[in-house]
Amino acid sequence: MITEQLLNPRSIAIIGASNDISKPGGKVLHNILAHGFEGQLYGVNPKEQQVQGIACYPACAALPEVDLAIIAVAAQYVEEALSTLAFEKNCKAFILFSAGFSETGPQGEALEKRCVEIVNAVGGTLIGPNCIGVLTQKYKGVFAGPVPEYDAMGCDCVSASGATMVYLLEMAIPRGLKFRDIFSVGNSAQIGVEDVLQYWDETFDPETSSRVKLLYMEQIADPKRFLKHAWSLVQKGCRIAAIKAGSTEAGSRAVSSHTGALAGSNTAVSALFRKAGIIRCYSRIELVYVAAIFSIKPLKGDRLAVITHAGGPGVMLTDILVKGGMQVPHLEGPKADALLSRLYPGSSVANPIDFLATGNATQLGEILDFVENEFDEIDGAVVVFGTTGMWRVDDVYQVLHEKIRSCRKPIFPILPSAIQAAEEVSHFQAMGHVNFTDEVSFGYVLTRVNKMQPLYPDPVLPAVDTQKIRQIVEKNPAGYLSPAQVFELLEAAGIVTVRQATVMSKEAAIAQGEAIGFPLVMKVVGPVHKSDMGGVVTGVKSPEEVANTYATLMSLEGVEGVLLQQQVRGIEVYMGAKAEDAYGHQILCGLGGIFVEVFKDVSAALAPVGREEATRMIRRLKSYPIIQGVRGKEGVSEELLVATLMKLSALLQAAPEITEMDINPLLGTPQALVAVDARILIG
Amino acid sequence: MITEQLLNPRSIAIIGASNDISKPGGKVLHNILAHGFEGQLYGVNPKEQQVQGIACYPACAALPEVDLAIIAVAAQYVEEALSTLAFEKNCKAFILFSAGFSETGPQGEALEKRCVEIVNAVGGTLIGPNCIGVLTQKYKGVFAGPVPEYDAMGCDCVSASGATMVYLLEMAIPRGLKFRDIFSVGNSAQIGVEDVLQYWDETFDPETSSRVKLLYMEQIADPKRFLKHAWSLVQKGCRIAAIKAGSTEAGSRAVSSHTGALAGSNTAVSALFRKAGIIRCYSRIELVYVAAIFSIKPLKGDRLAVITHAGGPGVMLTDILVKGGMQVPHLEGPKADALLSRLYPGSSVANPIDFLATGNATQLGEILDFVENEFDEIDGAVVVFGTTGMWRVDDVYQVLHEKIRSCRKPIFPILPSAIQAAEEVSHFQAMGHVNFTDEVSFGYVLTRVNKMQPLYPDPVLPAVDTQKIRQIVEKNPAGYLSPAQVFELLEAAGIVTVRQATVMSKEAAIAQGEAIGFPLVMKVVGPVHKSDMGGVVTGVKSPEEVANTYATLMSLEGVEGVLLQQQVRGIEVYMGAKAEDAYGHQILCGLGGIFVEVFKDVSAALAPVGREEATRMIRRLKSYPIIQGVRGKEGVSEELLVATLMKLSALLQAAPEITEMDINPLLGTPQALVAVDARILIG
Repeated sequence: MITEQLLNPRSIAIIGASNDISKPGGKVLHNILAHGFEGQLYGVNPKEQQVQGIACYPACAALPEVDLAIIAVAAQYVEEALSTLAFEKNCKAFILFSAGFSETGPQGEALEKRCVEIVNAVGGTLIGPNCIGVLTQKYKGVFAGPVPEYDAMGCDCVSASGATMVYLLEMAIPRGLKFRDIFSVGNSAQIGVEDVLQYWDETFDPETSSRVKLLYMEQIADPKRFLKHAWSLVQKGCRIAAIKAGSTEAGSRAVSSHTGALAGSNTAVSALFRKAGIIRCYSRIELVYVAAIFSIKPLKGDRLAVITHAGGPGVMLTDILVKGGMQVPHLEGPKADALLSRLYPGSSVANPIDFLATGNATQLGEILDFVENEFDEIDGAVVVFGTTGMWRVDDVYQVLHEKIRSCRKPIFPILPSAIQAAEEVSHFQAMGHVNFTDEVSFGYVLTRVNKMQPLYPDPVLPAVDTQKIRQIVEKNPAGYLSPAQVFELLEAAGIVTVRQATVMSKEAAIAQGEAIGFPLVMKVVGPVHKSDMGGVVTGVKSPEEVANTYATLMSLEGVEGVLLQQQVRGIEVYMGAKAEDAYGHQILCGLGGIFVEVFKDVSAALAPVGREEATRMIRRLKSYPIIQGVRGKEGVSEELLVATLMKLSALLQAAPEITEMDINPLLGTPQALVAVDARILIG
Repeated sequence: MITEQLLNPRSIAIIGASNDISKPGGKVLHNILAHGFEGQLYGVNPKEQQVQGIACYPACAALPEVDLAIIAVAAQYVEEALSTLAFEKNCKAFILFSAGFSETGPQGEALEKRCVEIVNAVGGTLIGPNCIGVLTQKYKGVFAGPVPEYDAMGCDCVSASGATMVYLLEMAIPRGLKFRDIFSVGNSAQIGVEDVLQYWDETFDPETSSRVKLLYMEQIADPKRFLKHAWSLVQKGCRIAAIKAGSTEAGSRAVSSHTGALAGSNTAVSALFRKAGIIRCYSRIELVYVAAIFSIKPLKGDRLAVITHAGGPGVMLTDILVKGGMQVPHLEGPKADALLSRLYPGSSVANPIDFLATGNATQLGEILDFVENEFDEIDGAVVVFGTTGMWRVDDVYQVLHEKIRSCRKPIFPILPSAIQAAEEVSHFQAMGHVNFTDEVSFGYVLTRVNKMQPLYPDPVLPAVDTQKIRQIVEKNPAGYLSPAQVFELLEAAGIVTVRQATVMSKEAAIAQGEAIGFPLVMKVVGPVHKSDMGGVVTGVKSPEEVANTYATLMSLEGVEGVLLQQQVRGIEVYMGAKAEDAYGHQILCGLGGIFVEVFKDVSAALAPVGREEATRMIRRLKSYPIIQGVRGKEGVSEELLVATLMKLSALLQAAPEITEMDINPLLGTPQALVAVDARILIG
């Protein structure tokens, strides 16, 4: 829980305060003093009586009562300091810079745990250890810079890596990005990213809260709480972008050398973000560009005007927008002609709107007015405007400033002259604007942001036979269910299965074969890779063939019996699920066989999966055209695919003990979707 | 042809010279004067006697003889000026800033053509029109800045967009990139990108020439000449990166509104770049990062050490490197232990090598020495090092500087503290280094650069029956060849075709069916989408079935006859070719059916395609695992695929009149690859 004392302390003690600003305890005091703090400030340092002009105490025991303690001493001294502060000084908030805790091994881990227990005992908040601190409106409790000015509508940030936060700011501030509260949570001993999200969610005020949230994480300890609050914030109008690093095995090795965090499954993270409506970023620069787009009013559509006085960047930008699925509509007709007549000869308004190297501020204003008022086929504008260095562009940027403020349609500024127009760009940013320096990076990120559609809440799952499901699951020990039980479970969830029977004798094979009806498929029971060993025979058409095939299959190694199945036709579909620890179940689907194995064409979502999310899963597949039907061939009913995914989700809800399952294949046509083979592992 | 007078003029006249440096004719003079020019300088301006301290003439006619003219007057005055300079003043080089030529329409196009004729008549060089000029060691003939210092080993550049060149410099200079010669070729009326490449190629001197070439283009007018010289430069040790903008239809509209250039087929451009060994970039920032990587000694392998004092960036960098196919090998054993003992407790050398926020210059030196001398499993290092702002990092960057100079293995510096370490970074760059500010952008680009393997020259194509090929092609008018001729052509090229015959009567069908052998496939002749209309019947097993099927097929609409084919089995393979105007033939291949149509899984290369390039085409396919054989199923002989692609290339060489052809499908097994159906269009 994040206490009021952390956010708005009446008093702060810095344990390890110093006059030396090359030390964390010196630098943090310097930052607090430099940016103003209206409450009481104390230092603790046995060697000093005053630090940077404030009173300094020899030990924590000597302090008066204090709301917040910022602790910048070696790990070995931390526990005692915490005890004194918590139990004797009524301290309810602690920022712990010190390293040497869980990231160093079992001993540090034990120490970290004891520290958390002390803070928990008094209902306090602990930020860190191994962090750079906290920035709020009230105080700048960080030892590492740069320290951005507080902006009430700036980006709220939380980062599990102090250095990443620092380098993010180093990249963001020069691009005009503004910041509000920043939490560097370090090892997240008590307060992690989830807690900060929860705090933002529970205290959200549509009038005063910022709507942009930026996250850097190396682990998501409590994905369900993370999802709950991220989703809720998005529903309240917030826009969230996040980096979850450690998406490869080697990257995770880096993570564990770094903070001892364990990397969650990478696809589960992406599925979580999609469900919550979070833009997943993979680099600082991408996060900065997304945040800058978030800081501009949302684009309500995908049709852009590209406005430029420089051909090349307009071409490259148009290419990336179109590749990313957006439109740069061709403009023509009387309105386009009217605009053209106001520009210099040689200009083009076909879109990109190119008003030439000699284009001026007045013309830019006219173009933006046409975009705003005349071109209904346009939802927003990108303006690329730099300078050759021959004249200043203050007047152009002034027009851009005014139009960004006054227009309903969003305008994205790309001001590429970092050297020659440095002053003008700086002045433009000082008026409260961001600036994208590279048009293609901007275009790529915009197409990603514009595609994001948050999901509706609480998916409704179809009713299933819960009683039967519980019965089957509870009577079985951990391990794979038998084929018969697998099918019973699927049927209890309403998933259509093929008619079949497992037999152990020739006579039973013939009898069951006749009951199911010809043609039949016969498969060995036992070995996993049935088809690789010749353990699957199709097109069995008569009792005699059944008898012969039975004999052949039973002679193969490791075979325990033979499964007889109705032979159904259709396109192979794959559905599966896997329990991802704290993430819950991840549900997967795709077309079967090589589409899954060679093309890795699989959609994933976290359970529960309702109608909308299931539909998106299907439509996101690269092989979706095959589902729709291509080359004169039948596809697969999208409705049945969606319904079956929802039933699978309902099954997992009723039987959370399922740790892994595959239905592979289902065979699908426009009329039917039938599960032919499946495996279910109970954990 | 690029004349000596353009590169090394003894005298320069500026037509339209001005005292007003907000005009091109004023700014270019200012730039030339500011950066030094050892020859004679003249101005031409009827209103001035002196401009910026140099002698000014009222008209070109009044000038003495001059080597180079820089023309900065309105389009309408250009032709006369050129005439006078060319025919009366022995001028052999012209830089034409003025706009108002081919980019404005037919009239401007005609004017541009007349200007080229004047310059050609005296064997001169014309740069532009509609350009920002030329930078060489001798003079800075540009009106648009920024003007980089000349560096003999800096990047050579050519750009078809002046603004893009300007904005590229605005982005590159702050990252430490150095420049040599820059050509802004504008409309490329006479001198285009190809000519500049040819000049670089023909004058290449391993001792004195720069090895880094950067290109921005919106068209490639002469792809074959482009390829010849680009490839030759790469063979001489140069590294080339290029943007070819206008890769989408809307982007091409932007191009044509911009310079009147026509966009070539986008896949043909990529194929051309692959053949030449050029890294294709899509943005200025990507080009800058590639150029910066080029400016560091090449990485001889794909195994990197990631060295950092900041966890997060190390994790993100490792993720992107591994995703891009590079290795960040786990380091362990006695050498790793020895290194670890020299670092602070809590450091990790597992790779990423994390030497903590407190890590210092001495430790960085030790780590880099271990990478250089002890870790044979490492080919190079990336160092991510910024600052928290508590202390200066000059000593760290000094070590980095020394190790970059002294180590055999390349070291890539990522210095993220743009604000807090601005001075130190600037000093580091002043010592001659580049700096990558974003680790993930760097990692992404490095994986692309490191994958580039130039091809060997002059592919050897297999012998084909040229006489027969010429005979068939020459006796046919433009249009589609008949199925029989298509097969004759394929056979003449040594491509194995299915046994088949086209028949017009039931009797012939039966006779030919028996000759070919059962089972047979029977297909309608005439309609294009045979399978969509039920015009293909497989598994015809007897003379009676032949007779019945013949009758059924002939009753379908538009059917002119029936094709009987040996029924062959195997995986469907697609090969095709298309004439791309000046690019020559583009050859395509992939697995057939949905792999081409739904997954667009096609490899392309420009003819001629030899063994190495054909092999790369096959291995680049996403469906390559299917060719190798997956899930216990047979694949297709890679050797036969490669051989057939080479034969296809040889066929196109013998019959360049083929404008389009498909062999779809070929059916492939590990033992055979047989063309079953094909179309050939003669242009």
